[in-house]
Amino acid sequence: MTEKLGKFGDMPAGEFRRFGYQIVDQIADYFENIEQYPVLSQVEPDWLKGNLPTSAPEAGEDFADILGDVDRLIMPAVTHWNHPNFHGLFSTSTSSVGVFGEMFAAAFDMKAMLWRTSPASTELEDVVLNWLRQMMGLPAGFEGIIYDTASVSTMHAIAAARERAGVSVRDLGLSGRDDVPLLRVYCSEHVHSSIDKSVLTLGLGLRSLRKIACNERFEMIPEKLADAIEEDIEAGYLPICVIPTIGTTSTTSVDPVDAIADICEKYGIWLHVDAAYAGSTAIIPEMQPIFKGWERADSIVVNPHKWLFTPFDLSVLYCKDLNELKESFSLVAEYLKTSDASAVKNGMDYGIQLGRRFRALKLWFVIRYFGREGLIARLREHCRLAHLFASWVEASPDFELMAPVPFALVCFRACPAGVDDLNAFNERLMNDINASGDAYLSHTKLNGKFTIRLSVGSIRVEERHIEKIWKLLKGALATAVEAAK
Amino acid sequence: MTEKLGKFGDMPAGEFRRFGYQIVDQIADYFENIEQYPVLSQVEPDWLKGNLPTSAPEAGEDFADILGDVDRLIMPAVTHWNHPNFHGLFSTSTSSVGVFGEMFAAAFDMKAMLWRTSPASTELEDVVLNWLRQMMGLPAGFEGIIYDTASVSTMHAIAAARERAGVSVRDLGLSGRDDVPLLRVYCSEHVHSSIDKSVLTLGLGLRSLRKIACNERFEMIPEKLADAIEEDIEAGYLPICVIPTIGTTSTTSVDPVDAIADICEKYGIWLHVDAAYAGSTAIIPEMQPIFKGWERADSIVVNPHKWLFTPFDLSVLYCKDLNELKESFSLVAEYLKTSDASAVKNGMDYGIQLGRRFRALKLWFVIRYFGREGLIARLREHCRLAHLFASWVEASPDFELMAPVPFALVCFRACPAGVDDLNAFNERLMNDINASGDAYLSHTKLNGKFTIRLSVGSIRVEERHIEKIWKLLKGALATAVEAAK
Repeated sequence: MTEKLGKFGDMPAGEFRRFGYQIVDQIADYFENIEQYPVLSQVEPDWLKGNLPTSAPEAGEDFADILGDVDRLIMPAVTHWNHPNFHGLFSTSTSSVGVFGEMFAAAFDMKAMLWRTSPASTELEDVVLNWLRQMMGLPAGFEGIIYDTASVSTMHAIAAARERAGVSVRDLGLSGRDDVPLLRVYCSEHVHSSIDKSVLTLGLGLRSLRKIACNERFEMIPEKLADAIEEDIEAGYLPICVIPTIGTTSTTSVDPVDAIADICEKYGIWLHVDAAYAGSTAIIPEMQPIFKGWERADSIVVNPHKWLFTPFDLSVLYCKDLNELKESFSLVAEYLKTSDASAVKNGMDYGIQLGRRFRALKLWFVIRYFGREGLIARLREHCRLAHLFASWVEASPDFELMAPVPFALVCFRACPAGVDDLNAFNERLMNDINASGDAYLSHTKLNGKFTIRLSVGSIRVEERHIEKIWKLLKGALATAVEAAK
Repeated sequence: MTEKLGKFGDMPAGEFRRFGYQIVDQIADYFENIEQYPVLSQVEPDWLKGNLPTSAPEAGEDFADILGDVDRLIMPAVTHWNHPNFHGLFSTSTSSVGVFGEMFAAAFDMKAMLWRTSPASTELEDVVLNWLRQMMGLPAGFEGIIYDTASVSTMHAIAAARERAGVSVRDLGLSGRDDVPLLRVYCSEHVHSSIDKSVLTLGLGLRSLRKIACNERFEMIPEKLADAIEEDIEAGYLPICVIPTIGTTSTTSVDPVDAIADICEKYGIWLHVDAAYAGSTAIIPEMQPIFKGWERADSIVVNPHKWLFTPFDLSVLYCKDLNELKESFSLVAEYLKTSDASAVKNGMDYGIQLGRRFRALKLWFVIRYFGREGLIARLREHCRLAHLFASWVEASPDFELMAPVPFALVCFRACPAGVDDLNAFNERLMNDINASGDAYLSHTKLNGKFTIRLSVGSIRVEERHIEKIWKLLKGALATAVEAAK
């Protein structure tokens, strides 16, 4: 081993090639055989920990041994997000070309803080986000910036909204002041927890978040929003941001963005649209009506890592005026000053992170390799499969739909005759399937009712996988009903 | 092309293998020939943009064409962070095995939010951070969590400090309250701009940050810190956090952490140590004394992506009580509730990001492949090379050292006789070298003096590269002096 790796320096190039090919093969095999793995890892907590040394090796190890341990120790502890029967949370998956993008990004290892430290990353980001903007039918003027996660995108959007409120939070902060009233952010009760975490982080506190009631379709009621804002203004509070969601996490319900935009306009409040999950489907022409009104937003978050076959992480924040974001965050230390600062875009100016990975590359690969048509075809197929599953649920006396299906998530539960506690029954049903490793489902609660969520979004999903999970559900139901007797 | 890629689904496995091998070869060639590239990209702003279509392709493209464009369009716009003569900012670089780690992480595409969605990532993170903790000589009890960047690590540390202050910012926020005085965070005037961005983001505002004066070695003066805290308390302010740096960005100066810890203890203030750059060198036994006192910190940030041959991004926040972080950030929505929540660690509980990449894998590869000894040898060599360069500077009448060299960064400037405006002279000297593409240097200002920074940290750096930059500097100096005559 010491013959291969020198006292200084990196792995010799020959070794890199040899092991590199081997890893490419391992990944190719993995994608080909993914259905042979249990979806949810079957290891017990602490299994991996228990199988690893408690301290680092003194001398370097042969990489062949390390690779062997990937198979032996890592693989059993992997939950296979790429498995076509991963239907939990949101089903996300990477394409092969997404992996290629990450290979180059890791090898270049650029930090896109300044244009000059990464012209390729900085400019490709602009180009590819402009492509995506057009594909989603958003008007020119919206400019995007890539962050890691939707949580961070949204946090930046609310920070910009906070700044626009005119109380100089950037400079003066919020503590020790008696001139700043309670700031308020509005969203529906079905909003993603990242909004709660954002207001908490930004020093607005959880109490700043006012959750507006929804109708029976789990959509924010605009009249209730208007009432809440009026009430808050009367109480002396300062509304700064409204966050409707297109595709909530629980049910993928769609808040009425256009009506909410009217309200934001009337009161001069920042409108941030959370389309982290569903935004990708705006590229499908017939789904454009669902997005009506989002072009009126101040900011929109969309996650290509969720449903555009791009490996995690890549979240996009589109802003109508990216300068507002810059004014909220730009701070240039002497060691980062460059003579070209006014002529170029420096990514570091748009957020808390200084270094930024070359994330645009993988999205560029994905859009070019599949083309607009190819991406539309895949997303459309996922929606078709979800609706097919929903039709089976609706046709069955033993199951019922729990929410509309605007995209590719089906909320349902089993409701066999003669079962008293449907919540406990459905929880057991889901847990049994998950424990089997055959598929992964997750849940939510709707009006107190335990609801199973089936998300369809994998690049590898086919009709037979939806047939499989339906068969699994019916089988588990029969067993559970039998046991309950 | 439609024969290769189906109407639905991913790239066929055969294609993945073929292009995968090709990319491995491209990366191997890249690493082997890295010195043939200009360090700083030589393209003009908007060159890449101007060479790319303004909208996405309708039909998918052959991946061979996309790969060709990586060579033709991306490569010229890459600034080569892996080039051994990248001496700007902090010289960081990836090892080959780091790239391997990212390949697997992208292929698995796990989101380590819940233990069950990623046991491998969750447990390997604990194991490998425990290895690193031991290697750095930090006592047991410190537990780590991986974030993307030091900026985000530090933001979380200050958020936890803010919570410990006992004014319930998490729940109540800071606006609309008259019971919360101005909160104060202390650091030296040489602190990294990420601290400024953190207090800005957290709603504390830039005015909450009090910058303490430094001595002539650019180290925070503890007496000044104590005075500032006393003064603030008298004024009714609430000190919440002190942030000394071990290895500041401008000069890599080391604040006296032990003396600062005394002060934090006395006043009950959270001590956060920023060792993002220099923390890695704590693995070198003879450098341990530099870190004296950091074991008394509440939190410490260390960036393996900076100086441990791990590709960006991987920043570690070590906390003496990780629960404090959890209490500041944990929020579990119904759709994220699991029956095992009390028995396992769920990464999402420790910060704003819900999804988290499988970053531990690449660090595990790096530590195992090089071993503790191999890592120590490389870091020690970098420090030796920096000191060698510093000795040349000291021995030359035309150059002078501008700051001590505790690690592997040399602050210096040219000072040839007969030049009036040394600032302008050194700026031109640096810009000329950068424009040549032969090396990349960056600068800072120390007491108003333009100072060139030479950072040594690449896994590919050898003594000949340091000789080369020294030769370049002397050559450029001669030319510039000639021109100035």
